Amino acid sequence: MNQDNRSADITNFVTHLECSKTGEALPAGTVQNLSPAGAPILVRYDLDAVAGELTKEKLASRPADLWRYRELLPVASATNIVSLGEDMTPLVALDNSLGSNVIVKDEGRLPTGSFKARGLVMAVSMAKELGLKRLAMPTNGNAGAAMAAYARRAGMEAFVFCPDDTPEVNVREIALQGGKVWRVNGLINDCGKIVADGEAEMGWFNLSTLKEPYRIEGKKTMGLELVEQLGWEMPDVIFYPTGGGTGLIGMWKAFDELEAIGFIGSRRPRMVAVQATGCAPIVDAWEKGLDHAPLWENASTVAAGIRVPVAIGDFLILQAVRESGGFAIAVEDEAIIAAQQRIGQEDGLLLCPEGAATAAAYLKALEDGLIGKSDRAVLFNCGNGLKYPMPAADAALDRHQPIDWSAIASA
Amino acid sequence: MNQDNRSADITNFVTHLECSKTGEALPAGTVQNLSPAGAPILVRYDLDAVAGELTKEKLASRPADLWRYRELLPVASATNIVSLGEDMTPLVALDNSLGSNVIVKDEGRLPTGSFKARGLVMAVSMAKELGLKRLAMPTNGNAGAAMAAYARRAGMEAFVFCPDDTPEVNVREIALQGGKVWRVNGLINDCGKIVADGEAEMGWFNLSTLKEPYRIEGKKTMGLELVEQLGWEMPDVIFYPTGGGTGLIGMWKAFDELEAIGFIGSRRPRMVAVQATGCAPIVDAWEKGLDHAPLWENASTVAAGIRVPVAIGDFLILQAVRESGGFAIAVEDEAIIAAQQRIGQEDGLLLCPEGAATAAAYLKALEDGLIGKSDRAVLFNCGNGLKYPMPAADAALDRHQPIDWSAIASA
Repeated sequence: MNQDNRSADITNFVTHLECSKTGEALPAGTVQNLSPAGAPILVRYDLDAVAGELTKEKLASRPADLWRYRELLPVASATNIVSLGEDMTPLVALDNSLGSNVIVKDEGRLPTGSFKARGLVMAVSMAKELGLKRLAMPTNGNAGAAMAAYARRAGMEAFVFCPDDTPEVNVREIALQGGKVWRVNGLINDCGKIVADGEAEMGWFNLSTLKEPYRIEGKKTMGLELVEQLGWEMPDVIFYPTGGGTGLIGMWKAFDELEAIGFIGSRRPRMVAVQATGCAPIVDAWEKGLDHAPLWENASTVAAGIRVPVAIGDFLILQAVRESGGFAIAVEDEAIIAAQQRIGQEDGLLLCPEGAATAAAYLKALEDGLIGKSDRAVLFNCGNGLKYPMPAADAALDRHQPIDWSAIASA
Repeated sequence: MNQDNRSADITNFVTHLECSKTGEALPAGTVQNLSPAGAPILVRYDLDAVAGELTKEKLASRPADLWRYRELLPVASATNIVSLGEDMTPLVALDNSLGSNVIVKDEGRLPTGSFKARGLVMAVSMAKELGLKRLAMPTNGNAGAAMAAYARRAGMEAFVFCPDDTPEVNVREIALQGGKVWRVNGLINDCGKIVADGEAEMGWFNLSTLKEPYRIEGKKTMGLELVEQLGWEMPDVIFYPTGGGTGLIGMWKAFDELEAIGFIGSRRPRMVAVQATGCAPIVDAWEKGLDHAPLWENASTVAAGIRVPVAIGDFLILQAVRESGGFAIAVEDEAIIAAQQRIGQEDGLLLCPEGAATAAAYLKALEDGLIGKSDRAVLFNCGNGLKYPMPAADAALDRHQPIDWSAIASA
């Protein structure tokens, strides 16, 4: 039952919290949202001490869930770990469709069916450690589902606000997992305003993306896992579906921490921020050389998870993309649907629309000469394909009745 | 990338195939459906040789997917393994709702979102090994999705027939994963007749439940994993949602093989076959002391996966239940929905209806005195809760607009 990783014997190495903009230090063990400068807060560790304690061999002997990285995680007391089984996610090769140099990290296999579980299991465990009892967040669906599940497991209240057109499956999942869920006439930033306003009215803790320090610590385990799974080697390029960007920022932080503890060298993958042409603020800012991305008006895409018109961590995303020699790239909805269908049909892997966007971006980047065929590429499939209405199936779907063997033979 | 478990160096120990009814031996490495006596075929291994080769320590050092049990699996050549990442599924405790003695093995975390992946990854890998190119099956949804995914990955054709009222999400998933799918005006046994008739017409291989030897070998890994995860200790009782019953039969076979290689003793859990009151042929046969279960007329339940009016492995299910000192039990749809909602709300775990049926059965068995509070119970959640229309959410779901803080406060 994976008891080892939740052992009380594993030391906590957090030293302090730090403003991502000014570097101002803030005390660990205190409830924090944004920093005094209004920027996301990062968790800092005594990495020299971690280096003296953690070895690759020790890691390899632990059960295969994200808690194996306890020395690089913020939860101090094992009793505060709230878990639904955050097992390592598999790497699935796309030999038939995109070729043997392309692998998918299939995050749809996590609890509540998306990578949001990584961030929220950490944020809720820390909320428990800090004594919080009532949580709230805006969501396009998946984050709210993860928050509700972990919050209820920890005996807390969960208030969730999602855009009115959020798929029914997501809303129902949130409700079934004990979340109190509202549909809001607007997009996720409108939901965010409600959650912010409600802090005073309702006394809830605001778990919005990057507005508290711990979701990023959970998301960074994507980077830790990936590199360990690849035998501590880096891929050449990582395609990441980018909404709020917590995962991209988190992985970039993970690589620095791994280098600091001597597990990897200075080599980094090129980080590629993937967006949809109907909502591409980061791509726009990257192309114009801006540090911040203005709000994208009239955002619209089939990939609802990356329909994020404005991201508070925009400067951190752009910084990681630039430092890595990567790029930001936008893909059409048609290309997303085509990629979802192609990979499903040829490799048997059903991607979510946001994951399919990374596949479409891979193909576009190849065509545009931004990457080469021999580059080892990792695509992040951030959610379970089953959570979506699957428009691509309309084309593939056919019904015949009664049985007509010649129709079957020619199908 | 979990290469170890797919190493060419791991020896294959299959000796022969065997009729489950007469014991007649059939040669391994040949294409087989039912035995000459019309019964399911079982795979037999040289277990003495396995005992000399495999150790618990060797197992523990391997990556955490079902291929770690290669010595007890039928695929001879590693090159025939068709994989989408069949990672071990987590055990999730239900401390808040059912108590700390009840754990769920969450099979919804497998590829294609259900335990059907275990059986089909094995059957399709063996189909590849035997040179088959065209596969067909009847399905209530999940098995067809798994077959389509693995078949396409192996470059084969997949023909799938499901009842007309199969949820749209399942049909779309099958289509998106490259399966050719038909809705049939009938239940799964009617679909089964079409697949049987089509063997001659279409030349396809019939992958129906227990009508080929290898799905059971995949399903038996549930038992292997469970016992290893529990430190080679047995739980007191296993609640298993029973349609075709492959998993229950498979686990029972797994326990015998583990005892034969010296990994466990003679102690066994009580095996409980869980069905819905609207389709309970096995429960009926168990109560009447029959060896076979007659076809259940007008089958109907919200738990579509266990809506199986007649099971070819009925006598094997009943045999395992009886030998184990277990029982068969049927639960009402209302109890299934109530259990799904309760466990979601209190423990944050969204069960599929069939998984929720095992929770309802646990509660009923406790009430009826068939088990005790101190019994360590394992419930099998056979599929991802996201694959279902989630009727339980209707009660939980509420929408308010515009924002009314007093309404939120009292939600």
